Amino acid sequence: MVGGGQGGYIGAAHRLAARLDDCYDFVAGALSSDPQRAAESGRVLRLDPARSYADYREMARVEAQREDGIDAVVVVTPNHLHAPVTTAFLEAGIHVICDKPLAMSLEEALQMQALAQSTGKLLAVTYTYSGYAMVRHAKEMVAAGELGEVRFVHVEYVQDWLAEPVEQQGNKQAEWRTDPARTGPGGCLGDIGTHAYQLASFVTGMLPSDISADVVAMVPGRRVDDHVQAILRYPSGARGSLFASQIATGEGNALRLRVYGTKASISFDQEHPDFLWYTPLNGNPVWLTKGRAHSPASDHATRIPAGHPEGYFEAFAQLYRDAALQIAAMLERRPIPASSALLTTVEDGVQGMRFIEAALRSSAQAGARVPIA
Amino acid sequence: MVGGGQGGYIGAAHRLAARLDDCYDFVAGALSSDPQRAAESGRVLRLDPARSYADYREMARVEAQREDGIDAVVVVTPNHLHAPVTTAFLEAGIHVICDKPLAMSLEEALQMQALAQSTGKLLAVTYTYSGYAMVRHAKEMVAAGELGEVRFVHVEYVQDWLAEPVEQQGNKQAEWRTDPARTGPGGCLGDIGTHAYQLASFVTGMLPSDISADVVAMVPGRRVDDHVQAILRYPSGARGSLFASQIATGEGNALRLRVYGTKASISFDQEHPDFLWYTPLNGNPVWLTKGRAHSPASDHATRIPAGHPEGYFEAFAQLYRDAALQIAAMLERRPIPASSALLTTVEDGVQGMRFIEAALRSSAQAGARVPIA
Amino acid sequence: MVGGGQGGYIGAAHRLAARLDDCYDFVAGALSSDPQRAAESGRVLRLDPARSYADYREMARVEAQREDGIDAVVVVTPNHLHAPVTTAFLEAGIHVICDKPLAMSLEEALQMQALAQSTGKLLAVTYTYSGYAMVRHAKEMVAAGELGEVRFVHVEYVQDWLAEPVEQQGNKQAEWRTDPARTGPGGCLGDIGTHAYQLASFVTGMLPSDISADVVAMVPGRRVDDHVQAILRYPSGARGSLFASQIATGEGNALRLRVYGTKASISFDQEHPDFLWYTPLNGNPVWLTKGRAHSPASDHATRIPAGHPEGYFEAFAQLYRDAALQIAAMLERRPIPASSALLTTVEDGVQGMRFIEAALRSSAQAGARVPIA
Amino acid sequence: MVGGGQGGYIGAAHRLAARLDDCYDFVAGALSSDPQRAAESGRVLRLDPARSYADYREMARVEAQREDGIDAVVVVTPNHLHAPVTTAFLEAGIHVICDKPLAMSLEEALQMQALAQSTGKLLAVTYTYSGYAMVRHAKEMVAAGELGEVRFVHVEYVQDWLAEPVEQQGNKQAEWRTDPARTGPGGCLGDIGTHAYQLASFVTGMLPSDISADVVAMVPGRRVDDHVQAILRYPSGARGSLFASQIATGEGNALRLRVYGTKASISFDQEHPDFLWYTPLNGNPVWLTKGRAHSPASDHATRIPAGHPEGYFEAFAQLYRDAALQIAAMLERRPIPASSALLTTVEDGVQGMRFIEAALRSSAQAGARVPIA
Repeated sequence: MVGGGQGGYIGAAHRLAARLDDCYDFVAGALSSDPQRAAESGRVLRLDPARSYADYREMARVEAQREDGIDAVVVVTPNHLHAPVTTAFLEAGIHVICDKPLAMSLEEALQMQALAQSTGKLLAVTYTYSGYAMVRHAKEMVAAGELGEVRFVHVEYVQDWLAEPVEQQGNKQAEWRTDPARTGPGGCLGDIGTHAYQLASFVTGMLPSDISADVVAMVPGRRVDDHVQAILRYPSGARGSLFASQIATGEGNALRLRVYGTKASISFDQEHPDFLWYTPLNGNPVWLTKGRAHSPASDHATRIPAGHPEGYFEAFAQLYRDAALQIAAMLERRPIPASSALLTTVEDGVQGMRFIEAALRSSAQAGARVPIA
Repeated sequence: MVGGGQGGYIGAAHRLAARLDDCYDFVAGALSSDPQRAAESGRVLRLDPARSYADYREMARVEAQREDGIDAVVVVTPNHLHAPVTTAFLEAGIHVICDKPLAMSLEEALQMQALAQSTGKLLAVTYTYSGYAMVRHAKEMVAAGELGEVRFVHVEYVQDWLAEPVEQQGNKQAEWRTDPARTGPGGCLGDIGTHAYQLASFVTGMLPSDISADVVAMVPGRRVDDHVQAILRYPSGARGSLFASQIATGEGNALRLRVYGTKASISFDQEHPDFLWYTPLNGNPVWLTKGRAHSPASDHATRIPAGHPEGYFEAFAQLYRDAALQIAAMLERRPIPASSALLTTVEDGVQGMRFIEAALRSSAQAGARVPIA
Repeated sequence: MVGGGQGGYIGAAHRLAARLDDCYDFVAGALSSDPQRAAESGRVLRLDPARSYADYREMARVEAQREDGIDAVVVVTPNHLHAPVTTAFLEAGIHVICDKPLAMSLEEALQMQALAQSTGKLLAVTYTYSGYAMVRHAKEMVAAGELGEVRFVHVEYVQDWLAEPVEQQGNKQAEWRTDPARTGPGGCLGDIGTHAYQLASFVTGMLPSDISADVVAMVPGRRVDDHVQAILRYPSGARGSLFASQIATGEGNALRLRVYGTKASISFDQEHPDFLWYTPLNGNPVWLTKGRAHSPASDHATRIPAGHPEGYFEAFAQLYRDAALQIAAMLERRPIPASSALLTTVEDGVQGMRFIEAALRSSAQAGARVPIA
Repeated sequence: MVGGGQGGYIGAAHRLAARLDDCYDFVAGALSSDPQRAAESGRVLRLDPARSYADYREMARVEAQREDGIDAVVVVTPNHLHAPVTTAFLEAGIHVICDKPLAMSLEEALQMQALAQSTGKLLAVTYTYSGYAMVRHAKEMVAAGELGEVRFVHVEYVQDWLAEPVEQQGNKQAEWRTDPARTGPGGCLGDIGTHAYQLASFVTGMLPSDISADVVAMVPGRRVDDHVQAILRYPSGARGSLFASQIATGEGNALRLRVYGTKASISFDQEHPDFLWYTPLNGNPVWLTKGRAHSPASDHATRIPAGHPEGYFEAFAQLYRDAALQIAAMLERRPIPASSALLTTVEDGVQGMRFIEAALRSSAQAGARVPIA
């Protein structure tokens, strides 16, 4: 693991997720860019001191040479380090699992994509919410034509944790996420807008061609956007609506998706992830329930019968499990198992960067419709 | 009543709503533009044949002269007749309660507004959903500052009854509502988009200054729009999101509003109208319930204690009750009672027309941001 | 109408319900047992003074003789007057619509039943909640075998309005409802327990044979029960669970029913009456929605398309409409129309009295299982 | 671990739960009573073959002697082995975490309790649902008097997985759970009735004194009960209602609790465990949300901010974490940390056996009220 030292938030979540399905051992890390904090974090997390590195470059070099070196590294640094860290490990021949947004720019993302291709290593990108059983079930339903032709997609991701200028009040998470030098050009856009965009793309299997967006910082003094709205157009003529907001007072972590097709619609709410509403045209809504609504994709991501809630960590763990399946197959020179094919990777990361750049471009032109390219 | 003959949908709803609170007697009508159907409808509805008119102009003329002539008329014709019928009765000195959208164009609406002002008669416009107790409670909460400064408003109105080309399959309601000559330039825009726009304005007390819209007919062969999306900007810097769709498969009559302020947010869903979610910043959601969440406005619109559901007809009846309170005051030359002040009128109708015209203007310019004026 | 004068609660609800579907004219009343209050109430409600009676016996006598006398009377007095008033009108040849519980004792109820039979007049009993479209739909589903064999029925009716000794604090409704002389031997048992019992019987078409009950007054000083629990056994071997409580803090008017069969289950909640959960064995729940879940019974009780909420008054009005259909048929010597056959009558009223008496008998024997007979 | 071999259900859940918070290493097991299956299970789970035992007695003996022997054992066998296995390990000086119901009889349970006391070892009993943050929050609210005096408790636990005679159709889980020799005298009573009873006791801090119960096998040919109903009385005069059913068609794993006090009520539903309804008398319901409704108890059981769902495994892991905190303290001869005090133990297990025995006793006497003793 690179990043994820003491006081961090997402590093601990990644470790728990990796541990949950018992596919990984946590054996090495460069847990902080501050060497002392790196060492202290390694101690607390019971790393072998010899494998608790002060520098990620050294870690990549040393681990690549060890007989028992790591098979894969997790990158949970602030965004500006995603590209250099990922590059160092891919070049060292080590598989990478990287947090999103993938990079600081589309250009950087495309370089990472090219490197992943040329090295033949896995570059997974943790779009956590695509790990839910019912999200995967939704994707299968759309792909199987159960919704007919998709006409309208609405996705939203709303939170309230940045409704006040907490980055000026000592909130470390908020500090780097509102600092353009570390978070990139998109604030809310990158942090949660990309999740919303990816979820819609993942489930529908469709990428929009055009966007009209309004990207704004609502909180006085904030240096990146905290509220985003967009109208999307798909090549098929379908339309999309997207908003993401970190100033949506009263909201926790509400990522919600609806897909309306000619035959039926579905609706998903991340805060109630075991369920998926499905409603046929003129019909009664059906509350598809994890463990009762079976499909290969949902069954693969379900650990326990209906009525036993699974949550955020289980969705996260699903990505780790799928990555492990792919890495194991690569190590053993077997084909990637089909069951793991829904793992999100650098392709999704690149699309996220395209979205960020197009949204900013449109917003700079008073919301003019621009291509996503 | 003008319009509302046999086979009509909204006329019966208006009659039930007018009857519910026992403020009106139904005594005269020009129930159809087809004289035979008008007569037959009057017979079925037990009108005095002498007051069952073949022509609304005759009705206005005769009723104005009768000693026991009507105090008020209800206009429930297709949209293209709203202006001429309203004009005839206002000019005859009779109060008017007119369905929405108010007119075929902003210009026509402004003329109706001017006539209402010059005649001093009531011109109520039945934005039904503003009659709900919890909608009125929401309005009071915003006005009292309980939400702080409003930052983001999302409103949507989604239905599926036009998801297929039912206007070509004998559905009378769909026929006139998709015929530009009778429904006006906006289809979905006028039929339900105006409801969404009005609800947001009613609750927040704010009107947006700019709009970026995408207005489209999704169903092949349809002559008016059936799907609308918009990004709104308010003078305060607040943002709005609106969509209205009549091709939203699986949806019945889902008019939903959320208002996010600096201190709290609220969320209303017309299909569950006795309830209003209220969530303070970083706090737990409160399920404000009709009959338990008291305010002068909500108590005025509540007929029965908590736990006894009131619905669409009661909201509708509330407009009729408020109109009756205003008309009675006017007849008795008393001031309009404050309790009835939330009745929606020609002002709301005019705003609806401004919205329709601006949305169409923006959409014609590839979604460019245009003023609502 | 007998009873229902000023300050009453249920009288106004009955009048609104009778008016809603335009089947009744309100023309005569003995609105209070206090002559002055009766007269004043008649004046406010715009009754012809000649038909605003000081005494219900006089009303029965005079109206029976008038050429334009009433066809039917509504009895909305406290419970102890149900039997004498009903008797007076039935004997005068006038149809009766009586509130529940029907009587002060099973014996009294049986006499009323015998009188209704011998006079051939309608004696409807207003079990309001059986008027909901989705309750009737539920009944049809069970009757059609869609649930298989019923195994378990749970019904509950919980309120909090008597959680404190409000009868000692000037609450008129509470006063008579907690006075054994006016409310009868059962307090909560009669007021809402009978509703719960009737709803379960109505939907399942089954009457239990045995009961084990615990009937208690929780609030110190209360003279009747305010909390009831029971275990029921049906002749088929099915089991039932029932509780009714007026001290259930936080509850408004929550009448909820679940029926579990061998093939599927259903669940209804009066506070959300447009909906009915239906779940097949091992399947996903379906949210049956008024206006989308069609059956002759539900369509007959639906006034407006899906997504337009109907509520308590509409359910109530349904009973009035069905009673009107039956009375009109009787007046015109036609057979009772099948569509009105779900109207609740004296039969339901008698069953309610059997339930009250058996519950009290069991509770007096430390909850021993006793027959309902 | 004793039990939990291949094909088992609950063993895998225990292992995942123990791993989640990184407090345990899985190093030894007697995973099946069938030696070959035990060995094969150990291999698959990557146990050191030397510590994969064919017999739990040998495991207790050998592990107690190893320098690196286990600190604690998990007992996930069928119920009839709980007592002998627990006894073997407690006598060997090893802490025990045992599944519920604790034993085959109250007598057996009392012996286990005595042994735990005399050996001074931990005997935790995994009442999983008491590990939820919002359940613990509920317990704190009641203890703090926020509900006032408790008057009525309703708890239910309903499932449908035994609605058909699946034990005759090859379902291994159903086989032993419906075999009196392995599951004990209570079927549904022990399997889920004890969970319901424990949850009510845990949250309210109250134990009922009397019970009137109806315990029945609904499915023809079933050898143990599959449906249970009970009326409970508390020493304070409060009343309780409990039902548990494994033939409740359409239900997954619905453990639901409501507590009504003089000041407020709460309602919890295990299938939506991040939430707890709280409603004050005459007030509006508040949807207390994990991560937003803070208390020492709920914060201790929360791993991630509001809006990130935690589920069954996290609740389960909470018990393991609390047990680890207690075991670590015992090993280091420190006082048990207060934060871990909500761990369920042999005391809860004994109460569960009292409940089973009293319910069976009452049911055998036609539901007569009997003491729980």
